[in-house]
Amino acid sequence: MSAKNAIYAQSGGVTAVINATACGVIQTARKFPEKINNVLAGKNGILGVLQEELLDTSLESDQAIEGLKSLPGGAFGSCRYKLKSADPSDPDNRRLIDVFKAHDVGYFFYNGGGDSQDTINKVSKLSQALNFPVQCIGVPKTVDNDIVGTDTCPGFGSVAKYVAISTREAALDVQSMAETSTKVFILEVMGRHAGWIALAAGLAGSGPDEPPHLILFPENTFEEDDFVEQVDLTVKRMGYCVIVASEGIKDAQGTYLSESGRKDAFGHAQLGGVAPRLANIVDQRLGLKYHYAVADYLQRSARHIAASVDLEQAYSVGAAAVQAAVNGETDVMVSIKRLKDDPYEWETSTMDLQQVANKEGKVPKSYMREDGYGISEEGRRYLTPLILGEAYPKYEAGLPRYQQLQNRPLTQKLPVYEV
Amino acid sequence: MSAKNAIYAQSGGVTAVINATACGVIQTARKFPEKINNVLAGKNGILGVLQEELLDTSLESDQAIEGLKSLPGGAFGSCRYKLKSADPSDPDNRRLIDVFKAHDVGYFFYNGGGDSQDTINKVSKLSQALNFPVQCIGVPKTVDNDIVGTDTCPGFGSVAKYVAISTREAALDVQSMAETSTKVFILEVMGRHAGWIALAAGLAGSGPDEPPHLILFPENTFEEDDFVEQVDLTVKRMGYCVIVASEGIKDAQGTYLSESGRKDAFGHAQLGGVAPRLANIVDQRLGLKYHYAVADYLQRSARHIAASVDLEQAYSVGAAAVQAAVNGETDVMVSIKRLKDDPYEWETSTMDLQQVANKEGKVPKSYMREDGYGISEEGRRYLTPLILGEAYPKYEAGLPRYQQLQNRPLTQKLPVYEV
Repeated sequence: MSAKNAIYAQSGGVTAVINATACGVIQTARKFPEKINNVLAGKNGILGVLQEELLDTSLESDQAIEGLKSLPGGAFGSCRYKLKSADPSDPDNRRLIDVFKAHDVGYFFYNGGGDSQDTINKVSKLSQALNFPVQCIGVPKTVDNDIVGTDTCPGFGSVAKYVAISTREAALDVQSMAETSTKVFILEVMGRHAGWIALAAGLAGSGPDEPPHLILFPENTFEEDDFVEQVDLTVKRMGYCVIVASEGIKDAQGTYLSESGRKDAFGHAQLGGVAPRLANIVDQRLGLKYHYAVADYLQRSARHIAASVDLEQAYSVGAAAVQAAVNGETDVMVSIKRLKDDPYEWETSTMDLQQVANKEGKVPKSYMREDGYGISEEGRRYLTPLILGEAYPKYEAGLPRYQQLQNRPLTQKLPVYEV
Repeated sequence: MSAKNAIYAQSGGVTAVINATACGVIQTARKFPEKINNVLAGKNGILGVLQEELLDTSLESDQAIEGLKSLPGGAFGSCRYKLKSADPSDPDNRRLIDVFKAHDVGYFFYNGGGDSQDTINKVSKLSQALNFPVQCIGVPKTVDNDIVGTDTCPGFGSVAKYVAISTREAALDVQSMAETSTKVFILEVMGRHAGWIALAAGLAGSGPDEPPHLILFPENTFEEDDFVEQVDLTVKRMGYCVIVASEGIKDAQGTYLSESGRKDAFGHAQLGGVAPRLANIVDQRLGLKYHYAVADYLQRSARHIAASVDLEQAYSVGAAAVQAAVNGETDVMVSIKRLKDDPYEWETSTMDLQQVANKEGKVPKSYMREDGYGISEEGRRYLTPLILGEAYPKYEAGLPRYQQLQNRPLTQKLPVYEV
């Protein structure tokens, strides 16, 4: 078999270390010229594949590729776009295979969350149905840490570290001024359905008297009366109260505490506004002075304080994906297996895509404090290894030097395709 | 003259490096035992002085005092509390002098912003009027960077660095996903009346095509129509738009874009909610998908990425305050004088408190881009030196080790006093 081209594409929300995965894919592919000719990157994920907007990574210098390890955001662009089916007659699907054929593609590496593992599963079935077999490897990535079957998802450790640090820092601020100023501080973090990021804030303190005093998980029903009572008791006991709330918390009716009404391209409700909503409750019912922060994209792009472990895992899943492909594997996702908690030991492995696609790993009760408002010792044991190490980027004039690629496109061979 | 005690107190909003100033005061005072006996720290600023809650810093080890250089928040507590007048018959004022007398206080170092310089000015007049002269030295600190007569205010450089980095990082995230996801991203930063922090975000990019595309200053009137047009044009030109908004922006009627109705103890309106308000405008008038972040306390407590220059200046103003007192100065504030832009050279100096108290230094037009929505070259020249260097704290188990003091109080000698 002669060498084939590979396509690498990024999908869904980007992370502080997703480009380290791209680096792992490209650097490893360059070690197997007899199998992999060139790595073509989809511009804006699978959209770029459909539109035949493929970026030629062979034109990027070794130094530029190495620089991907410290570039946050998606180096080639990402997208939220879901294939409708694995039906070979679907126009999107036929187009994908046309693009694979036109560019002699033998490998497809798709870097994303649970939704994206579903996409790559469809692409694999499709390529077989249309008789143009492509080796399809899923590469995990999501700050939400909700892909099943892997110890953790690259991107999560760095957000976890950022949120734990930010909580510790802001809490010191609030604590020192609570006598005459803010009594209740609320930090809103990401997490639609799984509260892993909120859980990570729990690492900032130890015991119920150290902030964060209350963590609100999407796994638990938000009970307003109980919440108000907890805040009140905490302020009476400690003089202040630090709350970390997941964006995805819902009331007993299953309604998001704050729903903007918009939906993203995957059909998920677009959230935001939980912190102001909680602040309003604190104001109305307790009359306490509050402040709130919404970390939003700051948390998932905070490359300046990425966890070394996370960076290393992000690189490794990319490298392992190429290694798996070269070894003849397909229809698998690379996963991370934990061998030991302390010191943390792990290795990469592969698992069947079917076991992963469209499933969501939630925070188990055993990782939560008994009252459901904090982290347990078991949760700590799981989380602590994931935030270890500070993978500082290089600085220039006081700012991180984040070098973007040239991203030169390949010449198009097919007619224009509208998605 | 025999050695006297000194009181050091922190006032107003705390910063990532305010405790480095405390460290400068205490370490320098320990060098002059023939003049300064002990540094007593006011618990929660001047409140602790009034209530005779004085913390004995002589009981803290050299190592603990050195650790103040990397502790965010206010190590002894801070407060928002303003003396009503310099009238010697005012109960607060008589009490202050009683406390000074009871604890043999000869020096008062007050670490705060413009309001606090006014307080110390009053205390000085008062101590003279009541015939118990105390040397009063103001020590500047404010993330708002709005104290006049000093090149910059310790605390600001670190917020500036944090906001510039966060803007650069979040912008890379937004840029890489704009094709199918968020088109408009808004970051709300602090700054009631002065837009220095918002200006600092401008360092994240160069030229109008690099994010942040639009900066909203409280110095400029917010014109909704023009704002909407600028956002629209930017999204059409660049595919996305990154906006950094100061919390203090006002419309043509002088109304804060988002006013919560609450006021703090200095009588300032308590703000928050500009980002959601702007997001709403973008949604209603342009129908573009948006996200917003509110940095709030995260920005001013982010010791994990404090600027080395800022940390050094924070320490130096504390050390210089003690040096000035030992040299017999009083009724002065320590200031920072810029000697050279590049490489940045500066020295500490002292200035008359009267020239400082209750004045606010705004961002000059010449530091803004011609259209009022960005930073100019002159603004860059001023700001860049202030964010240089990364003063990383030490880490333990993936988190910064922020060691708090014991804060053991002195035995009280006076009757209880209610403020």
